[in-house]
Amino acid sequence: MTITITAFERSPDGGMGLARDTRVRWALEEAGQPYEVRPVSFSAMKEPAHLGLQPFGQIPTYEEGDLTLFESGAIIFHIAERHGGLLPDDANARARAITWMFAALNSVEPPILELVTVRFVEGDKPWSKERLPLIVDRIRHRLGQLSVRLGDAAWLDGAFSAGDLMMVSVLLRAKPSGILGEFPTLAAYVARGEARPAYQRAFAAQLAFNTGKPPAS
Amino acid sequence: MTITITAFERSPDGGMGLARDTRVRWALEEAGQPYEVRPVSFSAMKEPAHLGLQPFGQIPTYEEGDLTLFESGAIIFHIAERHGGLLPDDANARARAITWMFAALNSVEPPILELVTVRFVEGDKPWSKERLPLIVDRIRHRLGQLSVRLGDAAWLDGAFSAGDLMMVSVLLRAKPSGILGEFPTLAAYVARGEARPAYQRAFAAQLAFNTGKPPAS
Repeated sequence: MTITITAFERSPDGGMGLARDTRVRWALEEAGQPYEVRPVSFSAMKEPAHLGLQPFGQIPTYEEGDLTLFESGAIIFHIAERHGGLLPDDANARARAITWMFAALNSVEPPILELVTVRFVEGDKPWSKERLPLIVDRIRHRLGQLSVRLGDAAWLDGAFSAGDLMMVSVLLRAKPSGILGEFPTLAAYVARGEARPAYQRAFAAQLAFNTGKPPAS
Repeated sequence: MTITITAFERSPDGGMGLARDTRVRWALEEAGQPYEVRPVSFSAMKEPAHLGLQPFGQIPTYEEGDLTLFESGAIIFHIAERHGGLLPDDANARARAITWMFAALNSVEPPILELVTVRFVEGDKPWSKERLPLIVDRIRHRLGQLSVRLGDAAWLDGAFSAGDLMMVSVLLRAKPSGILGEFPTLAAYVARGEARPAYQRAFAAQLAFNTGKPPAS
C-alpha cells in the first residue's frame, strides 16, 4: 500500500528542514519505505478536507490504505513498530527508546518552540525583547540537563533509535538561534544524526520539495 | 514484580489531582495493577539520585524490576501495551488511539500549560496581565478544534483508550480556569472520564497521599 504524507506546499523555513514532515521522511528513509508527499497550502490546511485528516489543521499526516494518522510522534512510532531499525528488540530497551520519543516531544521541544512565540507570534508586543532572555534561559536549562544525561555516549540509550531520531529533530530547531552550539555534547550528537544517510536523503527530498529544484544526484 | 512510581511529596495543587502521577495511577487502576508510590521532595528532585531516574528532575518515574521509565506518556503507553483495556486489538484502531496520546501531550497540553507560565512563572512581570488573554485565546482555539472533532461521540475513537485517558487528564488542567466549561462537549467528555471507577480510585489515592488522610472506604 502506498504511504502518503502531507507537507507544507512551501515550508515557512524555505527548506531548512525544520518542519515536521522532515522527521517523518527521515523515519521512512531509515525504514527503507517509499512514500509520496501531498502538498497542502496554508489556506487548504484550515479547510474541512484537511481537518478531517488533522483536526488541528497542521502537517504532517500519514495515509496508508484506510489508515490515517497525525502527530509526528504517532506517525514515527507507527513506522518504527512496523519496520526494522528504529526500535530495539529487547522489551526494556524498546520501552526506554519510546521514553526518549516522548521526552523529545514533551520536555525538550516545548521550550524550544517558545522561541517562535516570543520572536514571531508575539514579536510586535512591547514585552517581546524583555521576555526573550527568559525563554532562552529555559531552553539552556533543559539542554543542560539533556547534555548531562547524554554524557559521552553516541546515542541516548545504546543503539540509534526512534528516540534519537526525534530528539535530534527537535534539537535541530535550537540550532539557528545558536543555543544548540552552546552545548558541544549535544551539537556533536545532532551532527551524528545529520550525518546518517537516511537523514541526508530526507533533508535533500524536503529541500527539493520546498525549493522546486530536484535533489542533486 | 512490584511497580513503584514517584510523586510529589506534597503536590503543588494540594490534591486536586493535576500532577502527572494521577494519570499514571489512573492507567494502573484501569489495568488492575497494584503499585507503590515513593514521595520525592522538591529538593530531592534536583539531586543525583532522582536525576539518575529522571534527567529533567520531575515526577513521575516508573520502576519495575530493572526497568526505569519517565515521561507520563511513555509510562502509560508501557502499561497499556502490557495489560488489557487501554489499547484496542485492531492494529489501525490501536495506531489511532496512540495518535490521541501524542495529540493530548503535544497539541493540547502545551497551550494549557502556558497558563501556569503566564500566571505564576511570569506572574510578577509587567506583561503578565496583558499577555494572559493571548494565552487564553490559544487554548480556546485548540479546544474548539478538539470539540469539533469529538462531536457527539463518547470517546475520541470508538471505545475508551489510553488516548482518552491522556486527553481527559490534560483537559482537567483547563478546568479550574473555567475555560473547559466554555466547551460543553469537552466538559461532558471529561466528566465521563472522571466518572470511571479507575479514575475515582486514582483520584482518591492521590488525594489521600497529598493530604495525609486515608481514602474514605
